[in-house]
Amino acid sequence: MIGGDAAGMSAASRARRLKGPEELEIVAFERGHFTSYSACGIPYWVGGDVDDRDALIARTPEEHRARGIDLRLRTEVTEIDVAGRRVRARGLDSGAGSSYWTSYDSLVVATGARPVRPRMPGADAEGVHGVQTLDDGQELLDTLTRARGRRAVVVGAGYIGVEMAEALINRGFEVTVVNRGSEPMSTLDADMGRLVHRAMEGLGITMVNDAEVTGLLAGGDGRVRAVVTEDAEYPADVVVLGIGVRPETALAEAAGLPLGPHGGLLTDLGMRVRGRTDIWAGGDCVEVLDLVSGQERHVPLGTHANKHGQVIGTNIGGGYATFPGVVGTAVSKVCDLEIARTGLREKDARRAGLQYETVIVESTSRAGYYPGASPMTVKMIAERRTGRLLGVQIVGREGAGKRVDIAAVALTAGMTVEGMTALDLGYAPPFSPVWDPVLVAARKAAAKVQNS
Amino acid sequence: MIGGDAAGMSAASRARRLKGPEELEIVAFERGHFTSYSACGIPYWVGGDVDDRDALIARTPEEHRARGIDLRLRTEVTEIDVAGRRVRARGLDSGAGSSYWTSYDSLVVATGARPVRPRMPGADAEGVHGVQTLDDGQELLDTLTRARGRRAVVVGAGYIGVEMAEALINRGFEVTVVNRGSEPMSTLDADMGRLVHRAMEGLGITMVNDAEVTGLLAGGDGRVRAVVTEDAEYPADVVVLGIGVRPETALAEAAGLPLGPHGGLLTDLGMRVRGRTDIWAGGDCVEVLDLVSGQERHVPLGTHANKHGQVIGTNIGGGYATFPGVVGTAVSKVCDLEIARTGLREKDARRAGLQYETVIVESTSRAGYYPGASPMTVKMIAERRTGRLLGVQIVGREGAGKRVDIAAVALTAGMTVEGMTALDLGYAPPFSPVWDPVLVAARKAAAKVQNS
Repeated sequence: MIGGDAAGMSAASRARRLKGPEELEIVAFERGHFTSYSACGIPYWVGGDVDDRDALIARTPEEHRARGIDLRLRTEVTEIDVAGRRVRARGLDSGAGSSYWTSYDSLVVATGARPVRPRMPGADAEGVHGVQTLDDGQELLDTLTRARGRRAVVVGAGYIGVEMAEALINRGFEVTVVNRGSEPMSTLDADMGRLVHRAMEGLGITMVNDAEVTGLLAGGDGRVRAVVTEDAEYPADVVVLGIGVRPETALAEAAGLPLGPHGGLLTDLGMRVRGRTDIWAGGDCVEVLDLVSGQERHVPLGTHANKHGQVIGTNIGGGYATFPGVVGTAVSKVCDLEIARTGLREKDARRAGLQYETVIVESTSRAGYYPGASPMTVKMIAERRTGRLLGVQIVGREGAGKRVDIAAVALTAGMTVEGMTALDLGYAPPFSPVWDPVLVAARKAAAKVQNS
Repeated sequence: MIGGDAAGMSAASRARRLKGPEELEIVAFERGHFTSYSACGIPYWVGGDVDDRDALIARTPEEHRARGIDLRLRTEVTEIDVAGRRVRARGLDSGAGSSYWTSYDSLVVATGARPVRPRMPGADAEGVHGVQTLDDGQELLDTLTRARGRRAVVVGAGYIGVEMAEALINRGFEVTVVNRGSEPMSTLDADMGRLVHRAMEGLGITMVNDAEVTGLLAGGDGRVRAVVTEDAEYPADVVVLGIGVRPETALAEAAGLPLGPHGGLLTDLGMRVRGRTDIWAGGDCVEVLDLVSGQERHVPLGTHANKHGQVIGTNIGGGYATFPGVVGTAVSKVCDLEIARTGLREKDARRAGLQYETVIVESTSRAGYYPGASPMTVKMIAERRTGRLLGVQIVGREGAGKRVDIAAVALTAGMTVEGMTALDLGYAPPFSPVWDPVLVAARKAAAKVQNS
């Protein structure tokens, strides 16, 4: 295993469960200090919802070792010798001359992703943080404690940016989010992103859209002082970079392994690297098949990484398993606003050459008369003529986010919006109006497809 | 239309939307005082969660009339003359001689269901209530206000019984639930019903299982005094009957329309009564196809009644729509305990001649480290050999109930539990563990099918 987080260690654990130490020797290299942690939980730890860093660690190095996995922390793999079936590694805490080769029968590449760090003046100033690893999270928390002022700027308004804005608000900072796109959450269409925009403003977050960051200003002490865009300067005592990640595949690329259009490793459905029978890859460093568009995508998400690991471990352990692909489901929240999407946005559909109809409906999370019923906006996209569901986006309060699962399953099953109108979804006044918001959207979408 | 609640008035509204008054004359007969109300909301009104009876009324008689529907309240249809295409009706508030015939081109039978009233001594004592109609709810509320003591007995522990137990607790009564089955919620398997049992006891509800009510005792003043079973007597100042409903089809049966094994009208997928092109039926008076077992079922639920009405109204209005059937989804709650099911229970599977594997898993509603993560129990039933999903039952706290929709869609799509393990469900720490509880169950079920 190269990489000791979700994909790598899930694969290791699963393979170990199927084959004991006498049958299968497992060596895992991890560059950092931790294994099997929830990077997705970092914003909640930084924001104070989760007290303890260790709560984010699903399985410690000691637990892995106790199960007969030879885990080498703070050890970086620097080269894959595909022909010789071996990797070269070196201990990061030992001297420069300490590199060594280790042979393999099966190799798992689970090198994850790296944050997109803008190449701009000042990006390495003190007080500028990514939030990719537990180490990053700890450094950011230290900065927050030491910060002289209470002004925070978040660069980027995707999931991480939005979650970090909430975290910083919770820590008592004045938060400005500087966003390149026309609305926050570019994983949604702009008409739905606008709802997130309004909600963020309602929380006291200053949202700056259509703004490209050109640099960061540091003071004489090396600490960050402001974020600079073409039009303005935003004073900052701390800056969080939440501008997305790219597959970490330099090592794989150097070894000649095949990369896709998004820079991620390409695999078959069993998570074998394409063209190889002895190398596997999973997690944030691979591209996956989008089952709706039929195209490759890069979707760095812990839930997929865990599934990949499960599939890889099963196959290495002598079983059989596949990962068929994704439909692009994601949920998030800003305080009590829940944000969810699955399938294609309008621009994804256009890019895939699809013609479509869209509807947006307003409904409520519960029967309108039931206490706590709150508004929910559902956007649904369906293919013209066939009526096939292409995507759903939901923004609302409690109960909005996980409703997207209805659409995620329907997408996986290739349902039409007409077929969805008859879905037998759970109904009782505390849980849903008599027509679930997703059904209302499906009805309207079906009518629109029919009349198009 | 015979019947002015969900199915009948949805059909009327939909047909009116498609055809104006010059094209289509619509007459609707309703025996009671109200139209288009949420019977499912009655427990929450009785319990005080919903203040106002009128909040349960989706559309008033005046609103229907304003849309050109000739609505005749307090008017009972006493006969259907199928050959003559006419119905005989009489006003309940006018004299006995006031009956009259009305002709039709299309007839919609939406007569609903009637509560199972036990034939036992004392069942008509004062203070004994069903909760089927708004009138029932009002009478029960009046009794609660006047009750001399605070002892309430609920007969039956299905959805209505359990919801009414909660309502009465909220009104400050001491509540005993007398249940014929071995555990409450016989719509679940007993192993899951036991979790509901424990939760109800935790709320201070006295749960008496395996107890057949043999009679009710009334005092000299005609008021109910106790509920009697074979083994014991339970003192009661008020009694709520929640022992289920049967299709109200006496009228249809007298007219020679076809009834199924559960006493409900049989229809085709367009909701036409079988063998008839001019009579339609929907809502609680019909049987529907269970898509999992392939057998007919009676599922009295407002969400189906609304769908039936929509389909009937579309077809009468000159469009085309079908209701393909149900998978048997239902959600409910007792205080903060959420209870959900879809598909087949073990006994349904046996009755349908299916062999199956079951798993029960314990998981949490959110990432374990995230505040508010609460335990959730998921039972999954899968067919042997094929691995086809047959049913899911979920008991837990917030976020448990509507998770059943994942399984409802998967059942509709005929998915296998192996296929479900790869579902791309929404994941973020505030919404789900990295493996959603439904995925955990699917993985275990798939392994069990594989090893069987």
